[in-house]
Amino acid sequence: MIVAMQERATEEQIQHITERMMELGFKVHRTTGAVQTILAGVGTPIVFDVKDFQVMDGVAEAYRISSPYKLAGRGFRPEGTVITFKNGVTVGNSEAVVMAGPCSVENREQIFTAAEQVKAAGAKFLRGGAFKPRSSPYSFQGLGLEGLKLLREVGDATGLLIISEVMEISQIELMMPYVDVFQVGARNMQNFNLLRELGLVRKPVLLKRGIAATIEELLLSAEYILSGGNYEVMLCERGIRTFETYTRNTMDISAIPVLKKLSHLPVLGDPSHGVGLRDKVPAMARAAIAAGADGLLIEVHPNPEKAFSDGAQTLFPEQFTKLMQELRLIASAVGRSIA
Amino acid sequence: MIVAMQERATEEQIQHITERMMELGFKVHRTTGAVQTILAGVGTPIVFDVKDFQVMDGVAEAYRISSPYKLAGRGFRPEGTVITFKNGVTVGNSEAVVMAGPCSVENREQIFTAAEQVKAAGAKFLRGGAFKPRSSPYSFQGLGLEGLKLLREVGDATGLLIISEVMEISQIELMMPYVDVFQVGARNMQNFNLLRELGLVRKPVLLKRGIAATIEELLLSAEYILSGGNYEVMLCERGIRTFETYTRNTMDISAIPVLKKLSHLPVLGDPSHGVGLRDKVPAMARAAIAAGADGLLIEVHPNPEKAFSDGAQTLFPEQFTKLMQELRLIASAVGRSIA
Amino acid sequence: MIVAMQERATEEQIQHITERMMELGFKVHRTTGAVQTILAGVGTPIVFDVKDFQVMDGVAEAYRISSPYKLAGRGFRPEGTVITFKNGVTVGNSEAVVMAGPCSVENREQIFTAAEQVKAAGAKFLRGGAFKPRSSPYSFQGLGLEGLKLLREVGDATGLLIISEVMEISQIELMMPYVDVFQVGARNMQNFNLLRELGLVRKPVLLKRGIAATIEELLLSAEYILSGGNYEVMLCERGIRTFETYTRNTMDISAIPVLKKLSHLPVLGDPSHGVGLRDKVPAMARAAIAAGADGLLIEVHPNPEKAFSDGAQTLFPEQFTKLMQELRLIASAVGRSIA
Amino acid sequence: MIVAMQERATEEQIQHITERMMELGFKVHRTTGAVQTILAGVGTPIVFDVKDFQVMDGVAEAYRISSPYKLAGRGFRPEGTVITFKNGVTVGNSEAVVMAGPCSVENREQIFTAAEQVKAAGAKFLRGGAFKPRSSPYSFQGLGLEGLKLLREVGDATGLLIISEVMEISQIELMMPYVDVFQVGARNMQNFNLLRELGLVRKPVLLKRGIAATIEELLLSAEYILSGGNYEVMLCERGIRTFETYTRNTMDISAIPVLKKLSHLPVLGDPSHGVGLRDKVPAMARAAIAAGADGLLIEVHPNPEKAFSDGAQTLFPEQFTKLMQELRLIASAVGRSIA
Repeated sequence: MIVAMQERATEEQIQHITERMMELGFKVHRTTGAVQTILAGVGTPIVFDVKDFQVMDGVAEAYRISSPYKLAGRGFRPEGTVITFKNGVTVGNSEAVVMAGPCSVENREQIFTAAEQVKAAGAKFLRGGAFKPRSSPYSFQGLGLEGLKLLREVGDATGLLIISEVMEISQIELMMPYVDVFQVGARNMQNFNLLRELGLVRKPVLLKRGIAATIEELLLSAEYILSGGNYEVMLCERGIRTFETYTRNTMDISAIPVLKKLSHLPVLGDPSHGVGLRDKVPAMARAAIAAGADGLLIEVHPNPEKAFSDGAQTLFPEQFTKLMQELRLIASAVGRSIA
Repeated sequence: MIVAMQERATEEQIQHITERMMELGFKVHRTTGAVQTILAGVGTPIVFDVKDFQVMDGVAEAYRISSPYKLAGRGFRPEGTVITFKNGVTVGNSEAVVMAGPCSVENREQIFTAAEQVKAAGAKFLRGGAFKPRSSPYSFQGLGLEGLKLLREVGDATGLLIISEVMEISQIELMMPYVDVFQVGARNMQNFNLLRELGLVRKPVLLKRGIAATIEELLLSAEYILSGGNYEVMLCERGIRTFETYTRNTMDISAIPVLKKLSHLPVLGDPSHGVGLRDKVPAMARAAIAAGADGLLIEVHPNPEKAFSDGAQTLFPEQFTKLMQELRLIASAVGRSIA
Repeated sequence: MIVAMQERATEEQIQHITERMMELGFKVHRTTGAVQTILAGVGTPIVFDVKDFQVMDGVAEAYRISSPYKLAGRGFRPEGTVITFKNGVTVGNSEAVVMAGPCSVENREQIFTAAEQVKAAGAKFLRGGAFKPRSSPYSFQGLGLEGLKLLREVGDATGLLIISEVMEISQIELMMPYVDVFQVGARNMQNFNLLRELGLVRKPVLLKRGIAATIEELLLSAEYILSGGNYEVMLCERGIRTFETYTRNTMDISAIPVLKKLSHLPVLGDPSHGVGLRDKVPAMARAAIAAGADGLLIEVHPNPEKAFSDGAQTLFPEQFTKLMQELRLIASAVGRSIA
Repeated sequence: MIVAMQERATEEQIQHITERMMELGFKVHRTTGAVQTILAGVGTPIVFDVKDFQVMDGVAEAYRISSPYKLAGRGFRPEGTVITFKNGVTVGNSEAVVMAGPCSVENREQIFTAAEQVKAAGAKFLRGGAFKPRSSPYSFQGLGLEGLKLLREVGDATGLLIISEVMEISQIELMMPYVDVFQVGARNMQNFNLLRELGLVRKPVLLKRGIAATIEELLLSAEYILSGGNYEVMLCERGIRTFETYTRNTMDISAIPVLKKLSHLPVLGDPSHGVGLRDKVPAMARAAIAAGADGLLIEVHPNPEKAFSDGAQTLFPEQFTKLMQELRLIASAVGRSIA
């Protein structure tokens, strides 16, 4: 930590700050300049709040220097994390993976049709919600357990891996036999109790960035899971909230290279939520792969106009097939492959 | 719902849209202009997604007209909701109430001292966290049940009402005997499972606005609780996330008069989280009351510099006492009182 | 400036950074910790870009410590700036001033009526646009010189001081005989050529915060004017752009106490632009005064529904009169007066 | 325009709104539903402010239906605009163009070296600032006329087209003989006087999106130029301001496909300003081309660490050469070429 004192800070104020820093476990090096004294705290107490110092008398500015996360940082595993699934599919490797399917599981026919369509186009994972977080209490809330059973059945039938969203601690045990990846949605990125429990399971987790979460906060949320011992975490950029309203969110494509630099965890992009408009999804999917994403989540439905949820951002199957062809070209331009 | 067709929309497209509207339960009135056809959907299906129409072929724009919430709207109870507590304290009435206390319950002495200090200055509620949502897994996470017991004990001893944060469904039953108000934090504003459960209890809930939540989304989250039958909900503005980084958040004071107009629920302000800097809290507390807030949440600690959490935004007891005097003057200027 | 090196930074990298800092005029103090080296640059080169260091090899983080502005900082004039006008009206003193009037000067009758109405209610300045920045090229662009003449005439007749917006360098000389204050609108806050020219005139300038400008950027823009020798600058918070769309902008009330602390310049609030909705303007005007504003800009028109511009946020004269009465009570609650 | 009345709106209120709509030139079609009356205004008055209606008594919601811009809309020139330069280079065609060079012209040697480097790598335009908008009055402000002369000289020597920023009306005539494209920077996107003058010249203009400008506002600013008769306008996405601070701005890649759909004008991306960090520029450049951009602006300097401005986001020449090779692959994957 660095504390820069105000020009007119008194010796008493400087002593007070120095003592507080030492109480936290820092060794303090003092630089006395002609106009300003600077206190450099050396050492590694991970838990302290730099804001506490910013408001103390005599302080001009205070900065945390060390990273607030450890296990999620690139330095923990410089070579990068690769997650390997039972069927040999890997995430974080040279192959970029695509997870596709409808927003919600609606019925047997819909999910089987969707699964076949996305598999034929090259997807490796089937996505589909059984528990749905909906802004309105009056909207469709998902099929629950019945949806999970359908997902497992179609996964076994097609060889697709299954990813589905977990919203609540009590759902973890329920979902365990049915899914291959737990998805944590943007609204739950800071549901810390849920994250802590997911740190205790031994199944991969895909953690989506909250719509108002900084990159640092996303990595701190990943740290909750990693610190429980579950190292198989994937990060996902899915759009942040800005002043622009033409699109549902503003997909922060730059988060992809930034996260790849700061962390060893695989990074995926979700252009469906990122932009929210069907006809812009392909451009954003291409952009994410061009920027270095390890994979994509894409909403596809046999008939998006009749989808129970998120229809506006869901691709028609033929759009998805065409997009996959474009993505293969883009992937090879950046030295990767897509099945 | 209104759908404005593109200038060159075909008759087939117009028919397609009309049929989809009718399937949802709308009666459709058509206005055919020289350049553009407009379809007005009359009726009240509450569940439909206007975005589904925005991406359909031939559509220029589509607008939802009816409000997506019903019970939270001002029209449901035009005279406004007043919540009355067992000791006669009311929220939503002419008196503006102040809820004050430390961010976290730390130990017996701290919480008893804080309670006496805020009571002496005029607070009616004691706030204090037993379960703490923290960005870092390595930060203090609260005393849990022990903290709740201390809160109840000090509440009984002082006559202060107790408000504390619930983060998880499993905590509801645990907290029930100890608190007078359940607080839902900003990070859980869209934890819909939690909201639904809180709709089933018979105890008031204070619902904080998420840092990236629109006013409409806040009211939809309140609707989750109200639709379960729990009508005692208070709303709370506590700062939104913007590009400005000097303050922790940007407290949206205008949300106070906007919410008072749109909804019948009481509206409080939380200047501590709103601004995040101790020396700016008084100005924002005054502003909130001047703008019509029904009350305030303010963090006060016997020794903020040693607080386990949020010290930078926590008032010293003497600052709080002085602020309460200022607030009484402001309140009377807007036709209200503060004890 | 502080540069914290990465844990594995090489001695060569440290030397490279040290040399670059010295070239800029810093003396460099080095703290070598067990894990990390920290370089503290002492001295006062005002022009350097800390971002240049953030991307250099081996650097973990780099912070500017000294303030990038000098003349606008509170330290330059700790007692605060008071601007005194020819008729004895002051801004920055114990009296809070109100500047009111229509968005645009439309015709002789309109501006004379408005002037009388706002004067009767207690305003000291008449605001009115002669040159109008409009998002659309097809909107009313203002009366130009004719509007300026009307403003001067009505100012002389009523004793109200005149404030009007300057959009272009060539307008400065033209406006000089007609206005008492040059207003720089939000869109021109970083029109640096214009600011530099306004630094050369000897007439007060009211500088509005841009909708995406940080507080630091506002002060840097003020520095442009001050560094030319014109010290009579007023700052004005008028709403920033956020994700919330219910209001036109989000008025950042906290900017008022923040600016009062960081700078010696008077700070005004503009609730009309801040919120954009007539019925919310009074609440925000009260909040601004409660938070410590030195004055207000408020749009008032004899008949807002027929205003040529900004009608939705313009008060009816009777609303303004009522508001002024409320503001007097709020002002006295915070130790100030309003005429 | 559509006006949806409140449920309890009176007949008098409905009449009042109807009359106001007719005064503006609308024909009004009325739909009287069981709960709500809807007024559809048919016709094409381009100048009206829908917000004026939103605050009128009895109104629930009011929407503008028609687009507020005409000449900038895709419908004006459905086949898209192609700008052809004297040397045969085109923008808006199948070839994606790259404009590269230093932030500022610093001296003869620097600009000649930069020009040769970017030309060798495949750039068609040389960018370089002679007039610089700088946040601080103490920063380097550009070489002015001397810089323009150097740009022209190097342009003639190398065959590169010259693009440079215009900040002020008085600079237009000055720059006319020296540049091939006028660049309007983000801070001047709503400097309407400047835009109007640029509508009168017959030279292409590259208009950058402001950091807080919506896509609609960008198109309205383009409309200012087009409505003066200058149809050779290029749009440029260069990052918007959001809550994320790791990057300088958040580059809104989705604006590229959105603008391509809404407008006929060529759309470029500026990854240097978009992300602000040298090592992230290549990923964002690739993403922009993958999303369909017609070209790129990229900052390149012979020695970025010693650049007078924007060094942190400027590529080393060898980085640029490598990037151009990657871009050629991406371009061909989306059916385009880069020289």
